[in-house]
Order: sequence, then C-alpha cells, then structure tokens
Amino acid sequence: MVAIRFGLFYEHQMPRTGEQGEEQRLYSDALDQIEIADRVGFDYVWEVEHHFLEEYSHSSAPEVFLAAASQRTKRIRLGHGIVQLPPGVNHPARVAERVATLDLVSGGRVDFGTGESSSSAELGGFGVRRGEKRAQWSDAIDAITRMFVEEPFAGWESKYLQMPPRNVIPKTVQKPHPPLWVACSRRETIHFAARNGIGALSFSFVEPEDAAKWTEEYYRIIENECVPAGFAVNPNVTVVLPMMLHEDEAVAIDRGIDGAHFFGFALAHYYGTTPHDPGRTNVWEEFLERRAQSGFDRDQIIANAEALNVNVGSLRGAVGTPDQVADLIRRYEAAGVDQVSFVLQAGNNKHEHICESIELFGKSVLPRFVEGREEREAQKAERLAPAIEAALARRKPARELPPGYRIDEDAELVRARRAKRAARPTGVRPALALVRDEARGSARRQMQKGFYRLIHGRSDAEIERRFGPRAQRVFFAGMARQYDASMAGGFEGELEFRLTRADGTVSPWTIVVRDGKARARMGEAREPVLTIITGAADFLRTLSGDANPASLLMDGKLKLRGDFELAPKLSEMFGGPSPY
Amino acid sequence: MVAIRFGLFYEHQMPRTGEQGEEQRLYSDALDQIEIADRVGFDYVWEVEHHFLEEYSHSSAPEVFLAAASQRTKRIRLGHGIVQLPPGVNHPARVAERVATLDLVSGGRVDFGTGESSSSAELGGFGVRRGEKRAQWSDAIDAITRMFVEEPFAGWESKYLQMPPRNVIPKTVQKPHPPLWVACSRRETIHFAARNGIGALSFSFVEPEDAAKWTEEYYRIIENECVPAGFAVNPNVTVVLPMMLHEDEAVAIDRGIDGAHFFGFALAHYYGTTPHDPGRTNVWEEFLERRAQSGFDRDQIIANAEALNVNVGSLRGAVGTPDQVADLIRRYEAAGVDQVSFVLQAGNNKHEHICESIELFGKSVLPRFVEGREEREAQKAERLAPAIEAALARRKPARELPPGYRIDEDAELVRARRAKRAARPTGVRPALALVRDEARGSARRQMQKGFYRLIHGRSDAEIERRFGPRAQRVFFAGMARQYDASMAGGFEGELEFRLTRADGTVSPWTIVVRDGKARARMGEAREPVLTIITGAADFLRTLSGDANPASLLMDGKLKLRGDFELAPKLSEMFGGPSPY
Repeated sequence: MVAIRFGLFYEHQMPRTGEQGEEQRLYSDALDQIEIADRVGFDYVWEVEHHFLEEYSHSSAPEVFLAAASQRTKRIRLGHGIVQLPPGVNHPARVAERVATLDLVSGGRVDFGTGESSSSAELGGFGVRRGEKRAQWSDAIDAITRMFVEEPFAGWESKYLQMPPRNVIPKTVQKPHPPLWVACSRRETIHFAARNGIGALSFSFVEPEDAAKWTEEYYRIIENECVPAGFAVNPNVTVVLPMMLHEDEAVAIDRGIDGAHFFGFALAHYYGTTPHDPGRTNVWEEFLERRAQSGFDRDQIIANAEALNVNVGSLRGAVGTPDQVADLIRRYEAAGVDQVSFVLQAGNNKHEHICESIELFGKSVLPRFVEGREEREAQKAERLAPAIEAALARRKPARELPPGYRIDEDAELVRARRAKRAARPTGVRPALALVRDEARGSARRQMQKGFYRLIHGRSDAEIERRFGPRAQRVFFAGMARQYDASMAGGFEGELEFRLTRADGTVSPWTIVVRDGKARARMGEAREPVLTIITGAADFLRTLSGDANPASLLMDGKLKLRGDFELAPKLSEMFGGPSPY
Repeated sequence: MVAIRFGLFYEHQMPRTGEQGEEQRLYSDALDQIEIADRVGFDYVWEVEHHFLEEYSHSSAPEVFLAAASQRTKRIRLGHGIVQLPPGVNHPARVAERVATLDLVSGGRVDFGTGESSSSAELGGFGVRRGEKRAQWSDAIDAITRMFVEEPFAGWESKYLQMPPRNVIPKTVQKPHPPLWVACSRRETIHFAARNGIGALSFSFVEPEDAAKWTEEYYRIIENECVPAGFAVNPNVTVVLPMMLHEDEAVAIDRGIDGAHFFGFALAHYYGTTPHDPGRTNVWEEFLERRAQSGFDRDQIIANAEALNVNVGSLRGAVGTPDQVADLIRRYEAAGVDQVSFVLQAGNNKHEHICESIELFGKSVLPRFVEGREEREAQKAERLAPAIEAALARRKPARELPPGYRIDEDAELVRARRAKRAARPTGVRPALALVRDEARGSARRQMQKGFYRLIHGRSDAEIERRFGPRAQRVFFAGMARQYDASMAGGFEGELEFRLTRADGTVSPWTIVVRDGKARARMGEAREPVLTIITGAADFLRTLSGDANPASLLMDGKLKLRGDFELAPKLSEMFGGPSPY
C-alpha cells in the first residue's frame, strides 16, 4: 500500500468575457487559494506552461506565478508542470536557470515537470516540428540535468542545441536537482516515464482500476530496466482529476460540473482539429452551444451514491461529497497511485467555492490519508533503493571539463554553426525523405481539415448518405497506412469496429496489427482485443475532429468491449494528435 | 527642477567561496532587503538578467526573483532591468508572457528594461552575433510591444523572428504596456534611448555635471525627434551608483568600498578581454590580488568632506554619510536626472549593513526629496504631453488581423522557413561580405588575445622596449581602420594622444575623425577636442585589455583635457566591447 499525496493543478482557465481586470483577479484568486491549500496540508501545487491557448490556459509563464506562490506559502511543493522543453520554446539554459532560481526562492520546494509540447497552436507558434519534439525533449532534458550537476557544464553539440562550456548559475538547492516528471497521456508515455526513471504526471483521467495496471507496469520498468534521464530517479505516478467538494452532493455538482466539462471541451478544442481563429474564437460560447452534442450535457450528471464509480471518464472526476471523494482516492491508493492532483479552477468555477472545497478537503478528506504516510514512503524508498542505485549506474555520468578552457565568443560561434551543419542530414536522399515526410503530414492534416468542413453541422442521415461503405473502406485503409508502431507500446492483435447506421444495419471492420504493421479489412474479427461500437456518422465525426470519443462514450453513443485502456491511445497509434 | 525617485539595483553578486547554501542566503537576504526598501519608501527595485557571469551576477532568471519580490512588497516598482532581447536568448513571445504575468501578480508594478546583451560569455553562450545584436533588439522590441497591444498579435516575419498570428496571453495590467527602458553605457546609447522614446538606464557612473549634458540632449531628442519603439513614451533618465550609508563616513567607506570596487573590477573582467575559465577562474581572488594595480586600491579612499565631489568615476559613488549622499543626489537632481538607483549588494557587502543603509536612507535622505514630487512630475507630464502625442503619431500603429485566420501548424512551419530563407542574404556577394566581416572581427579579437599575452605582467620598461614608435604607428593606424561611425554619435574633430615614456620623452599622435572616416598621423593636433595623456606602456596595456582607462584615470596615470565625456565611448568607436 502506497502513501498518497495531494495536489492542486492550475491551468488558469478564463472563459472570454472581455471584462476589465479579469486576468488579474484570476491570478490573485489563485494565489489566495494556494495559500489556503498550503495551510490545510496539500503537498503540491502544479502549474502548467501553455502558450496562446486562450480561455483554456492563461498560464504562459508559470515560473513567474510559482515564484509569487513561493512567498505566500511555507511547505507546499511547487510543481513546474510542465515546462515545454523544445529549445525553440525555451532555451535549455534558461530552463535550468529558472528552475534553479525558483528552487532558491522557495527553499528547495520545486518539482520539475517536463513535456514535449503538443498543440498546433504551440508547435506552429514556436516553429517546432511535430516529428522532432520527442527527440528534442530527450536532448534537452539530458543537457538541462547536466547544467544542474556539471560545474561547469561541459558544452553541447547536437542537432537541437549548440552551446559552449559555461557554468550555468545559480545552482539548485535540492541535490543533484529537483525531482523530474514528464507529462503522460497514454500508457505508452507512462512506460516512457518509467524507462527514463522520472515521475509520471498523467492527464488521461484514468479510472482507478485501469490505473492499477499502469502503476504496476511503471514500477516493474523502474525496478528493472530504467536508464535515468536525470541524475536521480523520481518513482512516482500522479493522476489529475477535476474536483469540487461539498457535503451536499447536488451542490458539489452544481458548483463544479460546468468547470469540469469546459476543461474537457476546451482540451478537445485545442488538441483536436477544431478551427481556431486567434483572438476571435470564443471557446466558452462554443461550449455553451455545443456541450450537449459534444457529450458534456449538464443534465446527465445526477447526484447518486454510485456516481463516482463510473464517471471518471466523463470528467465527473472528484466532484462530490467528502465521503465520495475519499472513496475514490482509496481506490487510487489501492491502485498504487502516489498522488492525486485536483483541478478546481476550471471554466467559470467560483473563487469562493474553490476556497470552500480546499478547506473542506483539508478538514474532512485529507486527515483520513495522513496516518503512517511517512513510514510507508520510507519503506518504498528502501525497497527501491537497490534498483535505483543500479539504474543510476547505467546513466552516463556528469562530465568534467579539463581546466584551461577559455571563453572565446568568435571561436564558439563558428563551432556552433559547424556543429549545427554537421547535425543536418546531408546528401540528397535524407533531405528528400525529410521533405516527403513533411509533405505527407501536411497533406494529411489538410485533408482532415477539409473533411471537418464536410462533416460539421450535418445530420447523421446526411453523413451516412454522403459517406457510404466505399468511403468507409478508404478511411480504414487510411488509418492502417498511418499506423505508427512507435506509439503502439508493443500492442499486437485485432481491433474491431462495428459501425451502426440509422436503418439498423451494421458494418463490421477489423484492423489487424502485427509485426509493426497494420492492415484493414471488412468483416468481423476472430479474436478482437477491443471492439468499438458506434454510429457510422459519429465514427466519421470522430475522424474529422468534430466529435470526441470520450464524450461519445459518456453519452452512450460509443461502446467499448474488451481492453478498455487501449481506446485512448488509438488516435496516436493512427496518427492523431495528443494533448501533451 | 525634476522630481527624483530612488531605486535599489541588484546583480546578485557572490564572490566564490564554495560554502554550502550561499546562493540561497544571497537570494533570501535580497528579498528581506527589498521588503525594507518598500516599507521605507524606495520607488524601484531593479534586477539584472545575466547569464554565466559567475561571481559578478547570479541573477539569471530575474522574472522569478521579481515575482517572489512582488509578494513581499506593496508599492515598490519591479524593474525588470534588463531583459536580454536577442531571440537566441529569450524568445520574444516568452518575454511578453513573463512581463505580463509579472505585471499581473504585482498588480501593475513592472518596468520593462531591455538590452542587447554584450559580454562574450553571454553572446558566445547563446550564439548571438555581436554585429547583429542591435538589429535584434530593434526587431524584438517592436514585436514584443505589439504582442502587448495587438489582439491577436498579427504575426512576424523577419530575419530574427518568424511567428504566425497568435493571441499572446496574458495581457499586462498597465496599458498599453509597462514603461520601457534600455540599458545605456555611453552618450550614444542615451541618444538612442531618446530616439526610441524610452527610459535611459545608465550604467556609466557618470558625474552629475556630465549627466546634465546627457539629460539635456535626451529631452531635446524626446521632444523633437523620437519615434517610439513601444506604444507609449517613457521619458526618464536613471543613473546607477554603488552605495553604503552611515553617519560616520569612515564606517560607510569601510563597509561599502570593497563591494563597490569589486563591482567595477568584475565588470571590467567580463566586459574586457581578461581570460575566463568557466567554473575555475576565481574573480574575487584576482580582485584581492590585483585590485591596487587595476586602480581599485582601498587605501586611496579617504574620508573627507569633499570626497563625493570627485570620486564618482572611481566607483566611490554614494558611499558616505546621509549629508554627503543627499548633496550628491541634489547635484543629480539639478542635472535633470529622474532617478538614482543604488547598488548595495556588491562583492562581500554584509546583509546587516545593507539593511541598515536602506533604513537610514529612508529616515535621513529620502524625506528631503519627497516634497512636491508629484506636482513636479505632473508638470513634467503636462509639458511633454504634446510632444509625446506627436511622437506616438509617428510610430506605426497596432495592426488588425482580418478575422478568419486559422491556426495551421504545417502551413505555418513552411511559411516560417520560407521567411527565414528570404531574410538571409542571397547571392555570392552579400554572403561573402558576411564571412569577411566575421573573419575580420574574429581575427581582430584573436590578435588582441595574443597581444594581451605579450603585455600582461611586463614592466613599463619591457613594454617600451618591445613596442617602440614604429609599433605605435601600427596601433594608431589600426584604431583608425576599426573606426565605426555608427558608434560615434556624430562626433567630428581631432583626438590627441600624448604617450609619455620613462625617459621623459613624449610621442604625440592625432586621430582625425571627419566625414565618417578616421585617419591617424604622428604629431600634435591643431584643435584637439580631447587630449589623452598617458604612459606609452599603459596605453598599450589598455589596448590589450590588461588595464582599464577608468582605473588609470583614477590612479592619476591617465589625464584628460577637453571634452571628458568623449572618453568613455572611445573604445566602442574604435571597435572594443562595452558592458551592455
């Protein structure tokens, strides 16, 4: 049994109203809330880094916000979660500097969350190629952790970063550096976190029972095969959930469900293919207009004792009474989850309700989980110690620059340019491959955009008429072609799709994944690992980005049979974007 | 008569001791000091951004430090001074985001200082070409101020920044944006600040009587010919001085002079050509060993009533009694300076002495300058209003992106690459010119390094023997060749050099600047604008970076006749580096 810790999680959401001073109030309210959380015993406050995601997240400089929070709090840990590591967004030296400075002003309370960046708004805004962001993450985290421990940092010459030897100052209070985390949204990335020996910060609103499998695999990898990305291992799994607490369940729902649903809706907006016109698109209005058809119908949420058992996937999350939420947490605890972090400041949720919930959590929920926590954590540390020691021995050690180096601006600039040139693919063949991959990705996304326009606003009947069985064949063949084995986390087997039509007929399709390849055929599967049952029109809406599977699922318009946890990663396996 | 405001100025200096926890103490002491300053009535706290400048400045993430300070203070303004604007250091969108976020958490208390970056450690570390940093500053400040006011920012396609339309959020509390400043170290950059309609943050330790000419020119340009870089004009001139205050002058000197001198020594170390081995060079020890020969002899500073009249140039600054310092401030006030900012945390200056000085300043100096300040400021604003209105009408207005833009990652990446390619010089000729300029700059700096090794540690006699009149001819011809008209601020006329030798003989040399060109000849000048009298050996030491003119001046080893204020800009005019 693990010890469980609690966090608050901030996106700084702000439905567009145009009111004077609303951003300032949002920030000052959040600081007040965190002050309360610190007092009542929350362990973490997490603050995202997102750029240009109007309404969904006005938290573009979390280093500034968390530094402000550091002076309003005494013991709560400051989760810098997540910093976008592609060097086009943040120069690695600037990341090391700001993390260290935050560690200094907070007296060593920083947790350093990392991510690749993922929305089109951010990747396009900073000119980061989607196909290279994982490689950029790996490169940057290696460089940054070396900046923490090497004195001086011995320099870097990769495709993404060229930097001469420098002593990067200041240094962190925590040694060798603050605990590392990575944003995860799929089982594959949880594995990735484990292989890198860093904490998994999971945003996939996973049910406790599914989380159990994730944590089991996570710790198996940590104990057996991880090669740490940093110079310390941080074995921890955190799940993130919307929350609102009240003794009266109906009040909790009334206060919290719109915010939770807006959170889900706006996430789908920015990470799907919904068109976005910067400064103009009003996501909050779109939410109010389209929430029901997107699966976020307010009326479907009914207060009842069993609610939290089934509705995590629908973003009901931890909206309920202290008993309900404590029960939910117990299940995560049983699943081996180390931390649950709550999103309270979502949509238009009210400041006073958030403060009340935090106080109530501190009074009525948190005390149930405190007893024996330190002991259990000590036991866990002791149990993992040999594995961690072995893992750290596998990581390439800190380098020692021989004395006598001299800073030399001109020579360094020349060397950096040479290194950058050398990292570029040379010759006609790799260059052509690059152009081709880019053209393909681009063409695909262009096609999806056109597709969205054909689908959006049409009735089921219209869509079914326009896209018959022949069109279905094209789409399934396309999915199979776009299959990306690196995103499949080793999955092999049959995926079955049963597309129902208004006239009651069903078209069965199967995609077989084997030997790193996918193949589509019409007809039922022999041994489907997962069967997806949905309307033909809704299926096409999903492909076009006009509907999202989680919402359909909650609406009862999409049913799953078999290995549920495979479902959320289908879109990545077949070439779609993910939220982190 | 202007109204004068007061600031504290932080570099976060930390002589290398290797003690555990020293950086954390440095930061936490600074926060305590700022809290006192806020309480006793200081108006500004300025925090630099410097990278890799060990010992001289451990302030690499001022956005984090100032955010912490925002929650410890109520009314003091937070001077982000200066943010390095080359996009290789900070992406312009990240700068806009952090300035806005700091403005939010501080309730609108940010002043936004900007600079080009200038040390070899920083330019080489981030791969910024020295010859392009001014152009990068201009490009970035235009983009950043548009990010503040355009909603959405309509995008950017220049040589240095390619960014598609995005709504950069959050927005600042202060409208249209926080007051802008630029770091200045020479008369030329003061003019530059005025032409751009932004505050001049001057680091050149200028004497009050010289400052009068600067402010006069500054306000003449503001009123007549400025084209604002931002969307508001910030007409202000700030000077920065070391400070330590005590009723007993000898105590003030004892507590403050080493810090002030280390400040000057370390500045010369990083902005001259002294070799630096990252993580190894001990600047504090070099200071202790070489302070006297570098002109920072502790014993030369003697408590006497007239001290502050003559020693500003020697970094005595505002180290003295309340009466002395108030007198000095009166002279700056009379010179039209709008703000004096004090460096207290320098070298090994003690926390308790700094706190005492801040308290004493609040009690005994500040009250003398408060009366009628608001009225005088209102008068100034009223007087300048028509000129500012006219200036703002000259600035290209905020753009309005037509509605209907759609975020499109692929298309945006392709467009960014195309824009970058288009901005590159094409064809053989410009490309060759680029290579040539770079090779020249590099060769020059290489030569200077070799020269340093020939000079360093030699006696006057050795140097005179080795470099006779023939060598002098080579150096003067070289200076004339390296003359850069863009750094001369319109100067024309004769500069005379009188090089004295141990045997009592004098070699006179003249450099004539006319029509954008410089020419050197042996012999006295007819009408020298400035005459520089120094030993032949010291002159060569200065050229090699082994001595610095300010120290020689203070030591009496260098004398000036004529237009004093021309002297500090000689090194830039003839191709040397500057501290900002």
